[in-house]
Amino acid sequence: MPAFSIGVDLGGTNLRIAAVSSEGKLLEKITLGVKVIQGRDQVVNEMCAAIKSLSAKYKSEGEFLGAGIGIPGIIDMASGMLRKSANLPGWEDYPVRNEIEHRLEAPVVLENDANAAALGEQWLGAARGIANAATVTLGTGIGGGIVLSGKIWHGMNGMAGEFGHVTVEPEGHPCGCGGRGCAEQYASASAVMRMAREAIANGEAPELAKASSSDPEFGAKSIYNLALQGDEPARRLFHTFGHYLGILLSDLINVLNLDMYVIGGGVSSAWDAFAPKMFAELRERSLVYAATAPGDSLVGRTPSAAMGGNSAVAGKTIITPALLGSDAGLYGAAKVAESPA
Amino acid sequence: MPAFSIGVDLGGTNLRIAAVSSEGKLLEKITLGVKVIQGRDQVVNEMCAAIKSLSAKYKSEGEFLGAGIGIPGIIDMASGMLRKSANLPGWEDYPVRNEIEHRLEAPVVLENDANAAALGEQWLGAARGIANAATVTLGTGIGGGIVLSGKIWHGMNGMAGEFGHVTVEPEGHPCGCGGRGCAEQYASASAVMRMAREAIANGEAPELAKASSSDPEFGAKSIYNLALQGDEPARRLFHTFGHYLGILLSDLINVLNLDMYVIGGGVSSAWDAFAPKMFAELRERSLVYAATAPGDSLVGRTPSAAMGGNSAVAGKTIITPALLGSDAGLYGAAKVAESPA
Repeated sequence: MPAFSIGVDLGGTNLRIAAVSSEGKLLEKITLGVKVIQGRDQVVNEMCAAIKSLSAKYKSEGEFLGAGIGIPGIIDMASGMLRKSANLPGWEDYPVRNEIEHRLEAPVVLENDANAAALGEQWLGAARGIANAATVTLGTGIGGGIVLSGKIWHGMNGMAGEFGHVTVEPEGHPCGCGGRGCAEQYASASAVMRMAREAIANGEAPELAKASSSDPEFGAKSIYNLALQGDEPARRLFHTFGHYLGILLSDLINVLNLDMYVIGGGVSSAWDAFAPKMFAELRERSLVYAATAPGDSLVGRTPSAAMGGNSAVAGKTIITPALLGSDAGLYGAAKVAESPA
Repeated sequence: MPAFSIGVDLGGTNLRIAAVSSEGKLLEKITLGVKVIQGRDQVVNEMCAAIKSLSAKYKSEGEFLGAGIGIPGIIDMASGMLRKSANLPGWEDYPVRNEIEHRLEAPVVLENDANAAALGEQWLGAARGIANAATVTLGTGIGGGIVLSGKIWHGMNGMAGEFGHVTVEPEGHPCGCGGRGCAEQYASASAVMRMAREAIANGEAPELAKASSSDPEFGAKSIYNLALQGDEPARRLFHTFGHYLGILLSDLINVLNLDMYVIGGGVSSAWDAFAPKMFAELRERSLVYAATAPGDSLVGRTPSAAMGGNSAVAGKTIITPALLGSDAGLYGAAKVAESPA
């Protein structure tokens, strides 16, 4: 058996741990009931016990390369500490990586969860076989990750890929980051909820109002279902979502010119409702996209002989839904463990 | 003497050619009077003659590595042909690189002029010693180039760094690219002229109107001079310029997290007029910038012992004017010639 590593997803409501072979085969996945709210020590103890048990189980079959931990927050790659994490209170001044490394006696890599998801999709998901790809994760907010030549592009201090804070409406809705009109104010689950509340408050959305007061689980998904059923206010809301997501993607394409942009996260399942407007914006706002969109490649614009079968020129910019769902970050975390910095 | 290469700037009104040592020392610079308007053959003949003469002159002292040619337009890197160039009509279906290589009997690399300028600034200018930097060139339009680990990031097909077409005002001024509210509609020489014309037409700018009708060379520079003299409409115009340039830079920082962003091109000399508003936007719109701005580093926000002297965390995002002026592209073209793909 080939070598294997262990990926941890510390982001969700549950703690998930997976052993993955270096060939990308899932060996085993464990979901622990321990909650972040139970405190740092308990989480770390249970996590380490599970990693140890998994690594011991597969060690006889292949070399254990280490563990990667996907964390929702800003990570100081060099010191292995969390700089900021809204979801992990009390972890900021704690030497996470050292503590875990010490207990495991194996190398540990911390990675931002959106970066891990981007690497997971590039390794085994929608962008498999594509060296350069970015993933936009549409969740409560918007996360992002850029993979160049098969490796996460961290930037100067691990803060690359903050797609959620690209300005899409200069005088738009205020954002928690201190800016205004950030992408995540228009194309995330919380943006969908805010826009729905606004439409309800304005008396513009009777069906949304009804669902909101009768459905205890009223959320982005309920609004998507109303849009699918043809409710105009719900459709308009996802139209706005697609408009701004299209602007964000156009910006990314014009700046990065990557081969593929993967759209993941929970709200990406509303693809049918937002994608038509998103693609319309892309065709209008990105020459690079328009020139390389599937079915409209540059080859058709110039004598094809001149192109000499050059795949770079024939290359198409692909925008596609993610494939791995919430496992993307788990696989990506396992992948980063393969080559600790 | 070390090896040397030759850089060519085919973009401006003159054809400029420089021999540069691999250590970055300018050996000789030639400016030819031949104009692009005199036609492809004459330009190529005179360019090749000059490259030959320069390379022969220095060959005895060091190895000639080849020639790099900076071209304003979209280049097919693989075939060495121009795909699109507004400034070089008639060059599109002409095998530029092969023709020149054939005459010189040496390797030739074509490069987009904004990419060459970015590499020049990174090699020998404002970003010297900085591995990861982008250059925004504020000229008639906006050009851009990204250098990662000392190499130009081309993207899938050479179209990375199209910063001029990042959306900064979704329903803004139409752009030649087919989009609306592109950065170059607000932060370029032609944008300055358009905004001045609009202010004059609205009767809002008497001094601009006067200068525009009396000064035969009325242009962005005259408007900058009026702003310096305290003319409110001219100041407002550069305020708008700085506002939108700040949005563009915030987007680039949030996406790329590079160490440095260099502002070059002719209009960058109006720095004093646009920079204050540009920095105000950056502080507001980019958490990454705000957290890493000079004088306001992350070190001050967290216990410094925890940072352990980690230079990545202590890293600051630098926004700075270019240093090489119009020579940036010339040096960058020489640099790309050193390692043909």
